[in-house]
Amino acid sequence: MTKLHPLNRVMVEDVLRAAFKEDLGIGGDATTRAVIDDDTMASVAINAREDGVLSGVDVAKLAFEMIDPDLEIDLLKVDGDKIAKGDTLMKISGRMASILTAERIALNFLGRMCGIATLTHKMVEAAKPYTPRIACTRKTTPTLRLFEKYAVRCGGGSQHRLGLDDCIMIKDNHIAANDGDLEKTLQRARDYAGHTTKIEIEVDTLEQLKKVLEVNIADIIMLDNMSATDMKTAVEMANGHAILEASGGITLETIKDKASSGVDVISIGALTHSAPNFDIGLDFLELS
Amino acid sequence: MTKLHPLNRVMVEDVLRAAFKEDLGIGGDATTRAVIDDDTMASVAINAREDGVLSGVDVAKLAFEMIDPDLEIDLLKVDGDKIAKGDTLMKISGRMASILTAERIALNFLGRMCGIATLTHKMVEAAKPYTPRIACTRKTTPTLRLFEKYAVRCGGGSQHRLGLDDCIMIKDNHIAANDGDLEKTLQRARDYAGHTTKIEIEVDTLEQLKKVLEVNIADIIMLDNMSATDMKTAVEMANGHAILEASGGITLETIKDKASSGVDVISIGALTHSAPNFDIGLDFLELS
Amino acid sequence: MTKLHPLNRVMVEDVLRAAFKEDLGIGGDATTRAVIDDDTMASVAINAREDGVLSGVDVAKLAFEMIDPDLEIDLLKVDGDKIAKGDTLMKISGRMASILTAERIALNFLGRMCGIATLTHKMVEAAKPYTPRIACTRKTTPTLRLFEKYAVRCGGGSQHRLGLDDCIMIKDNHIAANDGDLEKTLQRARDYAGHTTKIEIEVDTLEQLKKVLEVNIADIIMLDNMSATDMKTAVEMANGHAILEASGGITLETIKDKASSGVDVISIGALTHSAPNFDIGLDFLELS
Amino acid sequence: MTKLHPLNRVMVEDVLRAAFKEDLGIGGDATTRAVIDDDTMASVAINAREDGVLSGVDVAKLAFEMIDPDLEIDLLKVDGDKIAKGDTLMKISGRMASILTAERIALNFLGRMCGIATLTHKMVEAAKPYTPRIACTRKTTPTLRLFEKYAVRCGGGSQHRLGLDDCIMIKDNHIAANDGDLEKTLQRARDYAGHTTKIEIEVDTLEQLKKVLEVNIADIIMLDNMSATDMKTAVEMANGHAILEASGGITLETIKDKASSGVDVISIGALTHSAPNFDIGLDFLELS
Amino acid sequence: MTKLHPLNRVMVEDVLRAAFKEDLGIGGDATTRAVIDDDTMASVAINAREDGVLSGVDVAKLAFEMIDPDLEIDLLKVDGDKIAKGDTLMKISGRMASILTAERIALNFLGRMCGIATLTHKMVEAAKPYTPRIACTRKTTPTLRLFEKYAVRCGGGSQHRLGLDDCIMIKDNHIAANDGDLEKTLQRARDYAGHTTKIEIEVDTLEQLKKVLEVNIADIIMLDNMSATDMKTAVEMANGHAILEASGGITLETIKDKASSGVDVISIGALTHSAPNFDIGLDFLELS
Amino acid sequence: MTKLHPLNRVMVEDVLRAAFKEDLGIGGDATTRAVIDDDTMASVAINAREDGVLSGVDVAKLAFEMIDPDLEIDLLKVDGDKIAKGDTLMKISGRMASILTAERIALNFLGRMCGIATLTHKMVEAAKPYTPRIACTRKTTPTLRLFEKYAVRCGGGSQHRLGLDDCIMIKDNHIAANDGDLEKTLQRARDYAGHTTKIEIEVDTLEQLKKVLEVNIADIIMLDNMSATDMKTAVEMANGHAILEASGGITLETIKDKASSGVDVISIGALTHSAPNFDIGLDFLELS
Repeated sequence: MTKLHPLNRVMVEDVLRAAFKEDLGIGGDATTRAVIDDDTMASVAINAREDGVLSGVDVAKLAFEMIDPDLEIDLLKVDGDKIAKGDTLMKISGRMASILTAERIALNFLGRMCGIATLTHKMVEAAKPYTPRIACTRKTTPTLRLFEKYAVRCGGGSQHRLGLDDCIMIKDNHIAANDGDLEKTLQRARDYAGHTTKIEIEVDTLEQLKKVLEVNIADIIMLDNMSATDMKTAVEMANGHAILEASGGITLETIKDKASSGVDVISIGALTHSAPNFDIGLDFLELS
Repeated sequence: MTKLHPLNRVMVEDVLRAAFKEDLGIGGDATTRAVIDDDTMASVAINAREDGVLSGVDVAKLAFEMIDPDLEIDLLKVDGDKIAKGDTLMKISGRMASILTAERIALNFLGRMCGIATLTHKMVEAAKPYTPRIACTRKTTPTLRLFEKYAVRCGGGSQHRLGLDDCIMIKDNHIAANDGDLEKTLQRARDYAGHTTKIEIEVDTLEQLKKVLEVNIADIIMLDNMSATDMKTAVEMANGHAILEASGGITLETIKDKASSGVDVISIGALTHSAPNFDIGLDFLELS
Repeated sequence: MTKLHPLNRVMVEDVLRAAFKEDLGIGGDATTRAVIDDDTMASVAINAREDGVLSGVDVAKLAFEMIDPDLEIDLLKVDGDKIAKGDTLMKISGRMASILTAERIALNFLGRMCGIATLTHKMVEAAKPYTPRIACTRKTTPTLRLFEKYAVRCGGGSQHRLGLDDCIMIKDNHIAANDGDLEKTLQRARDYAGHTTKIEIEVDTLEQLKKVLEVNIADIIMLDNMSATDMKTAVEMANGHAILEASGGITLETIKDKASSGVDVISIGALTHSAPNFDIGLDFLELS
Repeated sequence: MTKLHPLNRVMVEDVLRAAFKEDLGIGGDATTRAVIDDDTMASVAINAREDGVLSGVDVAKLAFEMIDPDLEIDLLKVDGDKIAKGDTLMKISGRMASILTAERIALNFLGRMCGIATLTHKMVEAAKPYTPRIACTRKTTPTLRLFEKYAVRCGGGSQHRLGLDDCIMIKDNHIAANDGDLEKTLQRARDYAGHTTKIEIEVDTLEQLKKVLEVNIADIIMLDNMSATDMKTAVEMANGHAILEASGGITLETIKDKASSGVDVISIGALTHSAPNFDIGLDFLELS
Repeated sequence: MTKLHPLNRVMVEDVLRAAFKEDLGIGGDATTRAVIDDDTMASVAINAREDGVLSGVDVAKLAFEMIDPDLEIDLLKVDGDKIAKGDTLMKISGRMASILTAERIALNFLGRMCGIATLTHKMVEAAKPYTPRIACTRKTTPTLRLFEKYAVRCGGGSQHRLGLDDCIMIKDNHIAANDGDLEKTLQRARDYAGHTTKIEIEVDTLEQLKKVLEVNIADIIMLDNMSATDMKTAVEMANGHAILEASGGITLETIKDKASSGVDVISIGALTHSAPNFDIGLDFLELS
Repeated sequence: MTKLHPLNRVMVEDVLRAAFKEDLGIGGDATTRAVIDDDTMASVAINAREDGVLSGVDVAKLAFEMIDPDLEIDLLKVDGDKIAKGDTLMKISGRMASILTAERIALNFLGRMCGIATLTHKMVEAAKPYTPRIACTRKTTPTLRLFEKYAVRCGGGSQHRLGLDDCIMIKDNHIAANDGDLEKTLQRARDYAGHTTKIEIEVDTLEQLKKVLEVNIADIIMLDNMSATDMKTAVEMANGHAILEASGGITLETIKDKASSGVDVISIGALTHSAPNFDIGLDFLELS
């Protein structure tokens, strides 16, 4: 994998600003203002408290800089790196007050993003020796999608569609609204879609799959909650004429079995909506 | 518990708007635009797919209304209600295109908020027969704190401080920056804090607790990662002269033991940062 | 063509608000405030002053409603309709002051959007009997892309990619940065792109095209500034294995010749960056 | 003409930020992320591809800096300069990825602003030997008025009123709403207007002009769609007691004739709403 | 005076929203949520607690509606009305919780705006029998200028320039930067200013005034801190060839004397920056 | 008093940006653009024109930097300092155009904030030898609360609650809505309030006070408009079991008498809503 470019500052800054305002409120960091002198200096390390995959280190760096551009910050790891409990991810030195004020926001982003990257990576590993793309869905945290899609990448996963507008995704209700006419529905999608937009359709049964393959319009076919056996048959039926994506409640326990079917993509909403927070802490090295 | 007032529309609307823009992008809901006629009508139900506690039903309602003020929406449950798998939370009828476009955002909020409310409720139940307040922390999702603090309330929990500015919270590093002088640190906090602001301090040992009680300034004392036995002693030592809060990696398994110590509050970061998504689905009842 | 769904209110409202603030400034509509009584009522018609294709009628309606929700507004045409000089697009009645204050903003959007739709439609007609998709590019007005991509659709055109993130587009400099290695560049694109994202590459010569077809990774190949003759050869070479897009200074005069080559798509930056304003006026019918 | 001060960064930055977010979407510049290494360096030149007048070079510079503050940028021309096909406007060196990501936004602003400045300049030249002020109107692109009014200045034109609040402009409908009483309407305007606000009124005929001159309240009189002959008479009638502004469909072909009448100002909506894009390109000089 | 049009909703709404968010914070109105049932209904009156001039009643109404669109609101007075201690300005009935939550924001706007309108009105009265325009300045509360300029109008005053861009105002430092050359400075202003923009210049002495009148470019001349006697001479010198504006620490005590000089305008920064809050209260009429 | 930390840049920047946009409008600082060359340099001093207490010097510095990061700025005083007429607060040198453009916004903030700090300080002094906390209220300028609460601190005062969400405040209407049942109302407040949130209740009479003390839930009791004599009795009655806060029309004349009662806190809305502007000017030292 090519080293990941960090998220553009212009994409990230407004969300960080909103996060700080939410936390600082009207009065700012009362504790720091009360008991820390403005000229007290400190050095700190941000350390992993468990094993996993790093994501968000540039976001955390920017968070500290937004509170205090004079802080000196060294990144010891880059996003996508495997990290072990005890590893130092970054070191910061400068005004202690600034470090304390920015700490929680920086760690909230890091904890969330590393949590997602780490779960994604576990899925990738659990699927081995099979190597389907492991993709997230649109079940992301409202307003934080860009961070979460990126974190999935850091963990070795894939982004899937970015929103409602960059890929057509036909589900049963769409077909029902077209009197159950699958071909008509797909044809309408084809007429509407620009030449850069792919069309995906969800099927529940091999029969539906057969029909979809006959119509021959869909670029991607999602196999919804199918057994590994059926999926294997599906792979044979499709025979490379469409990308096959498995979906539906897939877990670390079941992923290898599903992957063994030979599908191209496995998509998992839990990557973003239920990844546990990754434990990261800030430790003081020195005060002066 | 008094029935909860829903979150004020004015607090919620901008976040919903941002969430929709994130999802709709430049092109809007391509699938709906492609294959659903503007005058197709539908009735749907939003149903729980597991047991838990409801939170966010007014937020979801507002999400649908923001996409289409003509939708008719009936709420069958209110926030804070216990809900069972299969329960219908709300019914919506109107333009099918509008319902489909708003669906994911509405469910993303509901899934997150019910997840938090449900985990909170489980903690409250697991602590019984003891009844400490179960509080969340500042480890919330950036930009969504108001939704998450509210969801904790829906689950029977307590909000803790809202940000850095409404309560002073002294940790070891604050004391270290004052040459380890606990009394001086507390005194500075007292001098700074307004008369409406409480002062909390974190202690690791009973010795520290003793010192803090002697100084007699702190309103709240956080017992960080203490054993249940030590906490019991702490309760005796404090003897009602300060509010005692237990903190540090407390889980559904350990909470009852910790609660048995008699502490007033148990705070748990995982309520907001690691609650699993609650499974909710939208089912079509009728198309026309 | 399916009747177009109007743009979602939630996508449009903030831009309209910004446009009004820009125009109203600190003091509001001074002329109206000075010389129009608050209770003077009027009926007006918004009329086409030339022939073309309608786009933006719902946007204009919303603009009037944002200034005064009490205005009564009838739409006589829908987006995508062919309109002739003298046609009435909408009628409005209510407070004259509100109508005058909203007039310019509503007309500015209508004039721009109809201008784009009309030029697009002219291109579609000029290409006949050939029927390539006529697509716009990313050369849109900053902050108004959603309006302009939609206007292209109203004129019978196609949206092309929506931004930098929903389609990969490889140009000569990207290849140069990979030591001129076309295959390596395409392979990196394939490794990076999610399964919903297409890959497009630009070629200047038939030789490059041959290479690209051999590598067999690109979904779309852009023929940059090629002659119609070369494009015809290109169509034969590709033989349906990739989507071919013609680009580069194509005008109403040259489009038919280019289209005769059989390419799938013709993309034209001028659709959005240089469409002349469409002339629309507001005429008073009655005052009271 | 005094060298123009660039637009204040504080006025421009938010629009640039919005433009970048529109273009970068959720996923950022996919192509660059896929195929350009983060440490590939490049030097580029931004070159004019036609003759005209420069506007927006500081805006373009800021756009590049917002994506990457480490880019080195040399401006070789300043806004208001005459530029010829082939002229280099600015040189940039630094991370190739940053340059590619910012390119389109920077060029979209430059193309639009130079287009307006160039058309304005052509109008100024076409009017010679007459030298009326050539002014734009409120028919600007929604949300981009500040850029467009400024571009008109760069081309040697004049800004006219900035919005609805800084100048009163009475049209026929305003008079109609006052029972056709021109004097009453002007008197109401005079009563309302602050001492820093001018009053302009539109007239269609020399008779109306006579009446307006008699009432002697208007600072500026707009001659709407009058012939050059009538305008000449109007100039004699006004005899310097009011500023005369000609308006209505004036083009490069007709402007000299209109200007020969001796009016003070000629205002042209097309300067902003229909200026063709100015062709500017970015050429790579060196990669490393 | 024509009845004032209320401020456009589109101009006001965002500031109200920001004000509510500032007040509601993360947790909303804790007191109301704690002790008021959601279905408790109430009727209240908003009453003047002193004599003065009303401004902001539509703003207050909108504030209540933004919290709860179901509230029934009757306005008993309109902006610009003289009001006496005890007068009821508006009546509201509906959910008590909503009324309590919106109360302070609504009253903060009313108190500030009535304070300004009342002080303005007092100045107008104190100047009698002389009737110069009483104008405010740019010394307004940051972000609230539109409310404050409007409040000055409600009190019978005049708005002066709205910002830095709609009127040129030359002070001593501007002249100093032009080597003290007053004529050159005025000429540069004339060259720059559009035909809708007036030019004002500040003078300290009658000698300077003489020079300015000779140059004959300025539309408005500000007499800075001049005695009433000197101002009388100034009026004679100007003899109607420029608008004369008196400025500099003018108070209720000194205004009549200054006005007696015959100047056209008296401008007073204190109208907006130091008007005392106007006392208004909300009284409950009924609970149910 | 510990030296005050300046307000975090992230809290302040957006308000400053909004203030500049309000002032610069569409056209920017017309005067400066017209008559000041871009390369004219100047040195200026910002000087107090009266005696008082400084607040906002970092805000003013940031304002100048936002217009021009190249300005050199020296702060000669810090917030909280006593300042005398003629004192120089800061010196600035750099582009004269930048200094002039930023001047008014910087001074508007300084004037408001110093006005509040100075009035607060006067109240503190007037209360001597008594030393109650002098607190402001929620009667702050909408959108500027953070600046005003901070300015109160600079003057030696106290912030009181920051918004509706960080302290419960029970008034007569809240009790009325609970059928006049004071105990029930307080109990509901206690049930709702988190452990970090204090409960305050307003009483008008000593009888009410007695009742409140018996219920023993309130942390703070506000004595509304009580005589100094009654307040003295109240202090005896409370005997340290609750914090007592005096409120209601307290002025520089009456504060000492009220303070002599021994109450803990005196709160005064006028600190923020009616503090007169503090007079500060910008004087040019040198031009080049």
